[in-house]
Amino acid sequence: MCRLLAYMGTPIVMDKILYQPKNSLVNQSINAREIEEPLNGDGFGIGWYVPDVNNEPVTFVSVNPAWSNRNLKNLAPKIRTPCMIAHVRAASVGEVSESNCHPFQYKNLLMMHNGGVENFERIKRKIRQPLSDELYNWIKGQTDSEHIFAYFLNELLAGQTDIVNIEQVIQAFEKTFRALSRMMKEEGITEPAYLNMLVTNGLFFVATRYVSDPKEEPLTLYHSEGGRYTVEDGISQMVAPADDDQAVLVVSEKLTDDKHWTLIPTNHFVTVDAALNVKIRPIQA
Amino acid sequence: MCRLLAYMGTPIVMDKILYQPKNSLVNQSINAREIEEPLNGDGFGIGWYVPDVNNEPVTFVSVNPAWSNRNLKNLAPKIRTPCMIAHVRAASVGEVSESNCHPFQYKNLLMMHNGGVENFERIKRKIRQPLSDELYNWIKGQTDSEHIFAYFLNELLAGQTDIVNIEQVIQAFEKTFRALSRMMKEEGITEPAYLNMLVTNGLFFVATRYVSDPKEEPLTLYHSEGGRYTVEDGISQMVAPADDDQAVLVVSEKLTDDKHWTLIPTNHFVTVDAALNVKIRPIQA
Amino acid sequence: MCRLLAYMGTPIVMDKILYQPKNSLVNQSINAREIEEPLNGDGFGIGWYVPDVNNEPVTFVSVNPAWSNRNLKNLAPKIRTPCMIAHVRAASVGEVSESNCHPFQYKNLLMMHNGGVENFERIKRKIRQPLSDELYNWIKGQTDSEHIFAYFLNELLAGQTDIVNIEQVIQAFEKTFRALSRMMKEEGITEPAYLNMLVTNGLFFVATRYVSDPKEEPLTLYHSEGGRYTVEDGISQMVAPADDDQAVLVVSEKLTDDKHWTLIPTNHFVTVDAALNVKIRPIQA
Amino acid sequence: MCRLLAYMGTPIVMDKILYQPKNSLVNQSINAREIEEPLNGDGFGIGWYVPDVNNEPVTFVSVNPAWSNRNLKNLAPKIRTPCMIAHVRAASVGEVSESNCHPFQYKNLLMMHNGGVENFERIKRKIRQPLSDELYNWIKGQTDSEHIFAYFLNELLAGQTDIVNIEQVIQAFEKTFRALSRMMKEEGITEPAYLNMLVTNGLFFVATRYVSDPKEEPLTLYHSEGGRYTVEDGISQMVAPADDDQAVLVVSEKLTDDKHWTLIPTNHFVTVDAALNVKIRPIQA
Repeated sequence: MCRLLAYMGTPIVMDKILYQPKNSLVNQSINAREIEEPLNGDGFGIGWYVPDVNNEPVTFVSVNPAWSNRNLKNLAPKIRTPCMIAHVRAASVGEVSESNCHPFQYKNLLMMHNGGVENFERIKRKIRQPLSDELYNWIKGQTDSEHIFAYFLNELLAGQTDIVNIEQVIQAFEKTFRALSRMMKEEGITEPAYLNMLVTNGLFFVATRYVSDPKEEPLTLYHSEGGRYTVEDGISQMVAPADDDQAVLVVSEKLTDDKHWTLIPTNHFVTVDAALNVKIRPIQA
Repeated sequence: MCRLLAYMGTPIVMDKILYQPKNSLVNQSINAREIEEPLNGDGFGIGWYVPDVNNEPVTFVSVNPAWSNRNLKNLAPKIRTPCMIAHVRAASVGEVSESNCHPFQYKNLLMMHNGGVENFERIKRKIRQPLSDELYNWIKGQTDSEHIFAYFLNELLAGQTDIVNIEQVIQAFEKTFRALSRMMKEEGITEPAYLNMLVTNGLFFVATRYVSDPKEEPLTLYHSEGGRYTVEDGISQMVAPADDDQAVLVVSEKLTDDKHWTLIPTNHFVTVDAALNVKIRPIQA
Repeated sequence: MCRLLAYMGTPIVMDKILYQPKNSLVNQSINAREIEEPLNGDGFGIGWYVPDVNNEPVTFVSVNPAWSNRNLKNLAPKIRTPCMIAHVRAASVGEVSESNCHPFQYKNLLMMHNGGVENFERIKRKIRQPLSDELYNWIKGQTDSEHIFAYFLNELLAGQTDIVNIEQVIQAFEKTFRALSRMMKEEGITEPAYLNMLVTNGLFFVATRYVSDPKEEPLTLYHSEGGRYTVEDGISQMVAPADDDQAVLVVSEKLTDDKHWTLIPTNHFVTVDAALNVKIRPIQA
Repeated sequence: MCRLLAYMGTPIVMDKILYQPKNSLVNQSINAREIEEPLNGDGFGIGWYVPDVNNEPVTFVSVNPAWSNRNLKNLAPKIRTPCMIAHVRAASVGEVSESNCHPFQYKNLLMMHNGGVENFERIKRKIRQPLSDELYNWIKGQTDSEHIFAYFLNELLAGQTDIVNIEQVIQAFEKTFRALSRMMKEEGITEPAYLNMLVTNGLFFVATRYVSDPKEEPLTLYHSEGGRYTVEDGISQMVAPADDDQAVLVVSEKLTDDKHWTLIPTNHFVTVDAALNVKIRPIQA
């Protein structure tokens, strides 16, 4: 079912998130704690922004498990960034291939998903139908995730410039979730869709903790914010805000057992703006 | 632009085709002779039939170049089969991924392609549109080849059982090529489509040497038939038919410089039936 | 710590061992039952004999996990063989690389190991020192396993022809285990060495269930023999011997919960000869 | 035979060296110009320094060809560094594996090699013999290159601290080359050893253009220095030194046809110090 993680704030060395915490994302690739199937060994991906070099982010993906990837291990202690996201995959829909690894990139946007749509193949054709030619051909893999993001982008970019803001992302997500529910209904898919999704342009995050059937529990999603994120001996902390430091994390599961993590309510957005203000609001879908 | 090869006849050890000839397919992966771009290093695939074990063929593909693949080198001298096909890829449309490696498999059928359609993305949506749901979701990769085969299968399987014969394959190819020309015209694609394609069910081959614009020269495609195919010191021979032995090869380029290869005429089919009879006939497209 | 499996007998389609049983080797790659660390996702390898084609076996290895390997899934239902072995790896010593995947091959011999030597690097130089130049250079990877097999081969091949018999293999194992204990002692390694190892030439098996410290429990190793090995709905059976059928399995852990598995005693060999006679005898090390 | 490249100077975006020049290193992976065998498709590696984050460099390697690697393509335009090296491999000694990819790393040092020692396996044991235990176990792969660097490191680190200077590197290279010649002689290897090697700690380069038989021509190695390295439309330039900018390149072959490249004389070192002073001096071996 995958695990994901996102950081924005004072530039941080990746290692502190990917490897050092007791329940780091790399450890979650072997043995996640807050999900029934603990193994997320079907490839991984990271994306990060280097604002002084390029407007577009770097992505690095692999079909190999995160736990044994020598390049990831080598990169992590040597890359410092103000904004990074990462994903470890447990394949449900789609083969283990680079095209099916998250994050997905569209220009300066990065996207990733934790969850799934049962019997997705039944609605695949419907999701593709309204796409612009550009987005139709942007799809490279087979996952429900990538197709849903293509639909989302199609809504997001309809009649507007490249510059997007949080409000537009929220509206595109809501339209997408409503359309998905409609298509699922039309095709007789009754299992709930689990859609914990996160989009960033390096300056903001919008993430969803969502399940299409409100009687069900969505997958876990937490946020944590403070002055500075630190890790020592595997224990992460969020130090109180100071003059220069600020940090926000959004994660599928807590990186350590301490108390600085807040569960996002069912069917709510969490948004983080460029000033690192965190807001929670209901998803109207 | 890829290179392909197919063998049917007296069971043969793969090695004799893949590695031993001077211009073996593995050598063609490094340095093909009869094509402008000699490198075919973007993955490879083989498929073979094991009639006494399973009705469906084995496929083995890799994103690594054929010339250094340890598994291929290890398999080739130890697998004997009455029907095998193989392909080395030079990526034009679509990333280097397992999903984009030939051969493509549908049940007991194997398919591979050498050539390409320029600006294929312009007609991708049109090709997918008429597909059955099953074939729509059968497509796993991004290549023009796989999409064209999906269209071909859609024609082939329309209103008929699983058992297909050479005549049906020929008709499905002709319908597919005609439809492609129409779609290309509608979308203003004027560059010719190069479509050397081969389909087998382990009991027959149907291959095309085709270019959509009859003023152009299609890519090379040869056949060779005889009693027994042998290789010694890199030189292949076709021994005259004997009581028990018969063999047919269809190849993108000659495996050795000797004379047992016949170029298939422009825009013609070559078919090989279960009795290894070879026929050449024009493509009505 | 790895899991391994070997079959000899009436030719069998690989699938029945690798995928069909409830606790198949592929399932053990995700979630092994009889070992502390259930994950064996650091690559895998299979080897099998095709006596009518080649004296040497085929090996097929991959650094990807067995559970998602498309080539393995495709090969397994279509290869029938009288002798096969297979291994899923949990890397302890040595990176995840093809060179570190089991089985290791030397001419017509295949070898694999489940276990390990703590602080192996301390004795690596000593193990290599007595090797013939050929075996010194035969080592391609970094594992304790491959080095121990090089030492074993050096003992096995000392002053004799290529043809080896069970007795010679037994003696080479005993010499190797004694030498290892001596080297460990010299270098102050006090942790026990776990050495469940299996060697085959396609006509016999010799396997060890061994721990260097007799106060410790070795890793599990079972055998099962009978007339024919069958699987239905995930449940394997050993049918009583019949005229034409015979089969022996040696496995790290039981493939199903039924009763046809016998634990090999601590520090004993299990040998299976060409007539499929199974013998148990103590290891003199 | 491989191709290599190194840059030190004003921080540069990798893309300008790896992809943009007409004869960029990525193009050399497909079709190198100044070597008999133009293909360098057996993996690649890059290493770069991030002085404000970590004393040790990042390395990123892959067994896939450079020309199709999506991660390399994605990283290159987004990483800026004052010191980078890169290597594309044509495997001679050793399989295609990550362990055999250059650069090799030892703490803060990066090393790479273009060339080879014929019949290297004959002297492998001799090269390993004098190594410290640490360096004996540092060797992970099978290449002549890595073994020679282990010997070099053993000389370099003998009785001294971690901090090394150019003079020490030069002496270690000379001792290594002399020892190699001696070992080759002892083992009857008469073919010349080709040893274009480069070592860096991020603050200096030492590179060799060397062949063990002075009657032979070594492989090509060039340097270029100036104020700023620029590329436009595939054409690289070295702008005259300005106040703030300085740059030095060392390359196996010229990145463009222009005149800013100087061939290093046969059997000479080129050294580049932290102030970017370039010196050429003979190798005393």
